Amino acid sequence: MPSHFTVVQKDSATKARLGRLITAHGEVETPCFMPVGTQGTVKAILPRDLKEIGCQILLANTYHLYLRPGHDLIREMGGLHRFMGWDRPILTDSGGYQVFSLATMRKITDDGAQFQSHLDGSSHLLTPEKAVAIQEALGSDIAMVLDECIPAEAARAYVQVSTERTVRWAQRSLRARGKSDQLMFGIIQGGLFEDLRRRCVEDMAQLPFDGFAVGGLGVGESEAQLNAIGSFTAGLLPADRPRYLMGVGRPQDVLAAVRAGFDMFDCVIPTRNARNGTLYTSTGKLNIKRAEFAADRRPLDEACDCYCCVNFSRAYLRHLYMAGEILSSQLNSLHNLYFYHRLMDKCREAIRAGGAGRWSQIYASLDAG
Amino acid sequence: MPSHFTVVQKDSATKARLGRLITAHGEVETPCFMPVGTQGTVKAILPRDLKEIGCQILLANTYHLYLRPGHDLIREMGGLHRFMGWDRPILTDSGGYQVFSLATMRKITDDGAQFQSHLDGSSHLLTPEKAVAIQEALGSDIAMVLDECIPAEAARAYVQVSTERTVRWAQRSLRARGKSDQLMFGIIQGGLFEDLRRRCVEDMAQLPFDGFAVGGLGVGESEAQLNAIGSFTAGLLPADRPRYLMGVGRPQDVLAAVRAGFDMFDCVIPTRNARNGTLYTSTGKLNIKRAEFAADRRPLDEACDCYCCVNFSRAYLRHLYMAGEILSSQLNSLHNLYFYHRLMDKCREAIRAGGAGRWSQIYASLDAG
Repeated sequence: MPSHFTVVQKDSATKARLGRLITAHGEVETPCFMPVGTQGTVKAILPRDLKEIGCQILLANTYHLYLRPGHDLIREMGGLHRFMGWDRPILTDSGGYQVFSLATMRKITDDGAQFQSHLDGSSHLLTPEKAVAIQEALGSDIAMVLDECIPAEAARAYVQVSTERTVRWAQRSLRARGKSDQLMFGIIQGGLFEDLRRRCVEDMAQLPFDGFAVGGLGVGESEAQLNAIGSFTAGLLPADRPRYLMGVGRPQDVLAAVRAGFDMFDCVIPTRNARNGTLYTSTGKLNIKRAEFAADRRPLDEACDCYCCVNFSRAYLRHLYMAGEILSSQLNSLHNLYFYHRLMDKCREAIRAGGAGRWSQIYASLDAG
Repeated sequence: MPSHFTVVQKDSATKARLGRLITAHGEVETPCFMPVGTQGTVKAILPRDLKEIGCQILLANTYHLYLRPGHDLIREMGGLHRFMGWDRPILTDSGGYQVFSLATMRKITDDGAQFQSHLDGSSHLLTPEKAVAIQEALGSDIAMVLDECIPAEAARAYVQVSTERTVRWAQRSLRARGKSDQLMFGIIQGGLFEDLRRRCVEDMAQLPFDGFAVGGLGVGESEAQLNAIGSFTAGLLPADRPRYLMGVGRPQDVLAAVRAGFDMFDCVIPTRNARNGTLYTSTGKLNIKRAEFAADRRPLDEACDCYCCVNFSRAYLRHLYMAGEILSSQLNSLHNLYFYHRLMDKCREAIRAGGAGRWSQIYASLDAG
């Protein structure tokens, strides 16, 4: 049994589990959602407000911080926690996904990923060893290995070659590891092919990782494919280590994945949607810019007790959005993150209560809209 | 003696005074600074954080709220306080300054100010009566009369005509008044001409206003002119009513005006500068985007105990600014407003202490940089 993760309770009706993950900056109760703090800030949210929302752990992006302000600078400044004023756990990704989605002129070789910065076009080589070194400089609590994130439509032959390389990169990452208080998670690739996912798990599960992530989902596949591959892969992963479904997703996706046995999630959806005026409520999603809200005195969500819902009307939130006010992004982001964190609370309560009825209540609250 | 304003103490060394202003939403200790909440929000600041900073009263812009979302909507929503989630006092300007600075195709007649909206080009007529009606719909604690704000370089003949009109508009505003729990302030114009300022005060001081503002400064004149005309006019105003220097200014301007006997101030400088990276500290102004701060571990201001200075380094603030993060505007605005509010605290303490030495200490803290 690894000492950093304990499955506290298993759900009776589903594969969901309640867990406790111990990191250098404290404990995390799982299932948990990690807000995305791409450039060393969860956009539009003060760290103290993140704590108030109940955020236990956040994610920061290695690719962005490596390019600006640079990992060496952050190390000099005492590490990412101190730099961004966040004393709870941080997970850093490896940069692989951003190389795939943001950088230009990518070239993947066995050595690593060659790419040009989306900021200034400068050339960089990200190797598995470099990704470890950057994350050690950042001082995150959980580091992810470098992987190649491939599109959902990739051909089987390429997926196979790429996934085998991801396994070799994972082995190199473990060898490069130099920090004893940083957990390291392996990443399962394999596209939409169950046999390749299985083979990847078989190779990875032999390696002494502190947890395993499933990557390459939420990148263009259907909801059915996401759920099928996610659930299939979760079932293969070692039960004694945390399972992290990377980059997923919408509330219903997260809920399905919790029931399939995943423990950790991250996604830009709540914060990005907030800035675009798309807000989650207990009666469904709504777009605050719609004219119907112009004189709506009700809070965004009458069932919500977040700072935004307690103090402001839909009419005011619409006004802020239409006027292009920064406060719009602040309040909307607070609310959406609050919504996601309460969803995770409900999932943990459902597991604790051990009654299948709880899950249908949660579904009902998401389906209402 | 008016019941809404009391001069609690006069400074021994200057004309500064400590006062208590009573409004429908509570008391304000003067001298006070009012952050500007143009569109019904002090940009990038949650109302609860404004309270934490010590903000007693804020200013909102009639021109902006009239155009969007509209004063009728705000009245329907229960008034501006409820709409924007702010239960402390609000002063609304009359819209005159924005007609002068933002609107196009202005035409000023005795009737009022005809202008085209800067948002959609629509035509509007703002009369003294309309300005009162809008501010009553907004439900502010203090309403300002409509005035014509003229540029510093205006010719004497025009200033005279315009100022006489401003007095007639003030009389019409009082007649239009229909709300007993809203204070109304007259505005002194007269440009840079002492005799016209004096004549305007003589006319206005006879009218039953609850306070008097000095307008038409901070619009292009020199610092010497601002101080001379400001101080001259303050000395003419009734001592038993609050004196408000509109739209001024930099910390040193506010300090000079407090010493000349002004009680109230508003300015976009702290918040606008914050968003542009210009920050006030006890050792002078600094621009956070400068490369010299890239690896600077120090807080913005080592003498400051605001949330920003307690938790973050200059290096982090520079990173946020360079990365275009919303958190940059949030933290910078928090700090600059905190700085202004502490400056007002120091002014009130100096008056209370009654020692001239205090003023030179405050000056020294501003001059250091």
